[in-house]
Amino acid sequence: MDLPLSTTIDRHPLPLAKHSFIISAATSIEAPSPPERRIHIPTTLSNLLHLHLASKPDGRTVDLPTPTVDDAPAFSPKEDISSLFPDIHGRADWCRLLNPLHPWLRREIIKYGELAQATYDGFDFNPFSEFCGSCLYGRHRLLEKLGLSRSGYEVSTYVYAMSHVGLPAWLERSIHADAWSTESNWMGFVAVSDDEESHRIGCRDVVVAWRGTIAPTEWFENVEGKLEPLGDGHSAVKVEHGFLGVYTSKSERTRYNKTSASEQVMAEIKRLVKHYRRQGEEVSLTITGHSLGGALALLNAYEAASAMPDLPVSVISFGAPRVGNAAFGDRLKEMNVKVLRVVVKQDVVPKMPGILFNEGLKRLERVTGKLGWVYSHVGLELGLDVRSSPFLKRGIDVAGFHNLEAYLHLVDGFRSSDNGFRSSFKRDVALVNKASGMLRDELKIPPCWYQVANKGMMCNAHGRWMKPAREQEDIPSPHAQTPDPCQA
Amino acid sequence: MDLPLSTTIDRHPLPLAKHSFIISAATSIEAPSPPERRIHIPTTLSNLLHLHLASKPDGRTVDLPTPTVDDAPAFSPKEDISSLFPDIHGRADWCRLLNPLHPWLRREIIKYGELAQATYDGFDFNPFSEFCGSCLYGRHRLLEKLGLSRSGYEVSTYVYAMSHVGLPAWLERSIHADAWSTESNWMGFVAVSDDEESHRIGCRDVVVAWRGTIAPTEWFENVEGKLEPLGDGHSAVKVEHGFLGVYTSKSERTRYNKTSASEQVMAEIKRLVKHYRRQGEEVSLTITGHSLGGALALLNAYEAASAMPDLPVSVISFGAPRVGNAAFGDRLKEMNVKVLRVVVKQDVVPKMPGILFNEGLKRLERVTGKLGWVYSHVGLELGLDVRSSPFLKRGIDVAGFHNLEAYLHLVDGFRSSDNGFRSSFKRDVALVNKASGMLRDELKIPPCWYQVANKGMMCNAHGRWMKPAREQEDIPSPHAQTPDPCQA
Repeated sequence: MDLPLSTTIDRHPLPLAKHSFIISAATSIEAPSPPERRIHIPTTLSNLLHLHLASKPDGRTVDLPTPTVDDAPAFSPKEDISSLFPDIHGRADWCRLLNPLHPWLRREIIKYGELAQATYDGFDFNPFSEFCGSCLYGRHRLLEKLGLSRSGYEVSTYVYAMSHVGLPAWLERSIHADAWSTESNWMGFVAVSDDEESHRIGCRDVVVAWRGTIAPTEWFENVEGKLEPLGDGHSAVKVEHGFLGVYTSKSERTRYNKTSASEQVMAEIKRLVKHYRRQGEEVSLTITGHSLGGALALLNAYEAASAMPDLPVSVISFGAPRVGNAAFGDRLKEMNVKVLRVVVKQDVVPKMPGILFNEGLKRLERVTGKLGWVYSHVGLELGLDVRSSPFLKRGIDVAGFHNLEAYLHLVDGFRSSDNGFRSSFKRDVALVNKASGMLRDELKIPPCWYQVANKGMMCNAHGRWMKPAREQEDIPSPHAQTPDPCQA
Repeated sequence: MDLPLSTTIDRHPLPLAKHSFIISAATSIEAPSPPERRIHIPTTLSNLLHLHLASKPDGRTVDLPTPTVDDAPAFSPKEDISSLFPDIHGRADWCRLLNPLHPWLRREIIKYGELAQATYDGFDFNPFSEFCGSCLYGRHRLLEKLGLSRSGYEVSTYVYAMSHVGLPAWLERSIHADAWSTESNWMGFVAVSDDEESHRIGCRDVVVAWRGTIAPTEWFENVEGKLEPLGDGHSAVKVEHGFLGVYTSKSERTRYNKTSASEQVMAEIKRLVKHYRRQGEEVSLTITGHSLGGALALLNAYEAASAMPDLPVSVISFGAPRVGNAAFGDRLKEMNVKVLRVVVKQDVVPKMPGILFNEGLKRLERVTGKLGWVYSHVGLELGLDVRSSPFLKRGIDVAGFHNLEAYLHLVDGFRSSDNGFRSSFKRDVALVNKASGMLRDELKIPPCWYQVANKGMMCNAHGRWMKPAREQEDIPSPHAQTPDPCQA
């Protein structure tokens, strides 16, 4: 007898994204707050004993926007924005450019965001690699390897960081005893616009892209309140102890951090600015980063503006936490540092540290005056809403909400705060799922698809699997920091 | 001030193998029973927000055997075993071949095990693929695609299965509404030795390789005691309801199971046996499978021996559970079916169903006689011990102990029950970590490394990531079941 199939076939729960929790709101999709944090973890052995991903569609059908044409370029055209560049760089606090979002500004935000994303895509996360914690590629071909040749930038140096502060799970380390480094991680790069790009934007643009690591949630659970003076003579200016530790730590005993990240990046910025100014060019500095990288960007901007008061300095950060107290913000403003914080409303990280503490004190502040011991945000916010995109799932996904590719997708679709996703979005939607499972199942893009074949293992002629040696030009070296492209 | 680094750097817990639990015994490595089941799950958000694998070495150093030479072939040489084949096939119950393990038998066990492994490596586990649950490759190139061209076998047909029994998480299904099938899964294949291999072993060897799916742990928690008569006229013979369901279910409403797996496989075996016997050849039937596949192999052997009493029928199973009652075992013995069960001592699956129940009754049996309602193992056991291999971790890893590649590694190193791992092992040790994290960190092989680049997504010329269509010859079709290679 044939029983009806529909009643006899069990289905798996939603897939567990690799190394991320999918937390689903069980009922309402419109009320993410307070979320019902039901964590789907495979609870039985049988789910685990073979490597099957499993999923079920969430049952709803949606009207997705006009399907993306497969042969439409996934990028906005490069337009000459030199007439507006100072404004796009924030000179007038992005007045009348943010809401609705000016298409030229949108393109630039995405450009910087993709440079920040490159610090993840180029990072060796594999603890079984002797180069774990370094960049996978040498600086001369990083952008090319990551498909960013069209960015119009050339990487001039890499930045390494270490930390003396006992941070939770900050450093990625190789299991190899003879690893390239046991104390330092690749933390980003300094790049400079090439001639064509400089001409297009009307300025020689020096960019620093800072890598984030973990979301600093755990960090702040531990260190909240550990505000520390910056030590620049402004005693009221205080910033988060842990961030400052990453930015300023150094040790003679290390190979890559005999100088701190701060010293490395500042030396290179100064060198580039001097070089191009000597050639009579206008120079701007744009610092970008996601998550922890956004926090480092702010510290970096503070230092650069202090050192070079006449240099236009902007920060474009994504999902960045608070960094310092109100005095820190005031001082940044005095120094004319322009900060555009791109923030997804559902992301918890920008609410750190002091998610309740700070919010609760907002009203008190008028009464009590500026509180030196409260973390404060800086600059302008470009607020994004996960619910604006018809491509994204409606459940609660704490990791997904913080994902940089999801940020870039939402910027791409953003028109204005009271307007839906623009139908003329350009970026490839599939990118959202590179390292998340945010995309709706209907799109048929697997979650967390960005992965290397066989984790880099290759089968040799004798049938043995091994990891080929890294190519010489991609092997990190503390001496490879000699700068170009402008030194010749 | 430079603080000592060693005290300030936190390390991650052991990596979570993708979709598998690593369960570590916290203290003693010699006392896996009762294990302290401490499940390492990343407990904090910070572990989850980026895709870093992390690991720490377990601190011990071991003397690994003479390092494998990278350019030594990873396979045993092919020797002419025709003089001994009937014995290797089990004619005399593998008398004097098992302990110590005869090298020719070892090679054959591994040969069959690799064909069983092909049913995993060739399976489309991706629910985002419209072909999820099918074989990734057409039967003409399955073995070639999986690096098994040297096996000496040609696949003659694929076998599909469905089930009317409500099994937990048995079926892998696509999320696509228009998937290739919503009821059936590719469940294995029938293959036959080519002329060269037949000459080498002295016999035309028909092989059935059955795919396992989940470890049937959960299954047996639910269905223990559901023994069901086989329905072959021997009313005392009973087998597990769920296994029989997979083996015999069919439905006119399906595309791939208008006939059951049983009917598909039996028709092909009969056809091949008839064909080769007509040509005056000796024919043998060897049925292999891992886990659930080992259970199906036994049902298949029972049916084949019933239908063709004069055909030598052997089963080589890996980590297979119990299938039926004692009468089932007796009947198999009467029909001269030879069963070699390869069993890792630490694997729980072969203890299923009735892990406590059956063991407790062993002594009672002599008193109470054969109990019709107790599951019973069949045939001879080749017992392996995870602790015999110096390459494997010493913790408790329930999934790893059941992993087929770990089984094959242990067979490769097995000399005899009271002797250590042979130093002349041949297989590539790295294979153990294809879908597990069993290898010691010192070997520097990443866990679960067997993965497709970008989950099959590819970037087109316009910068868009998409999954290319499956090649025509790899698309499953219910009409592609027409047999060869011997029909022409």
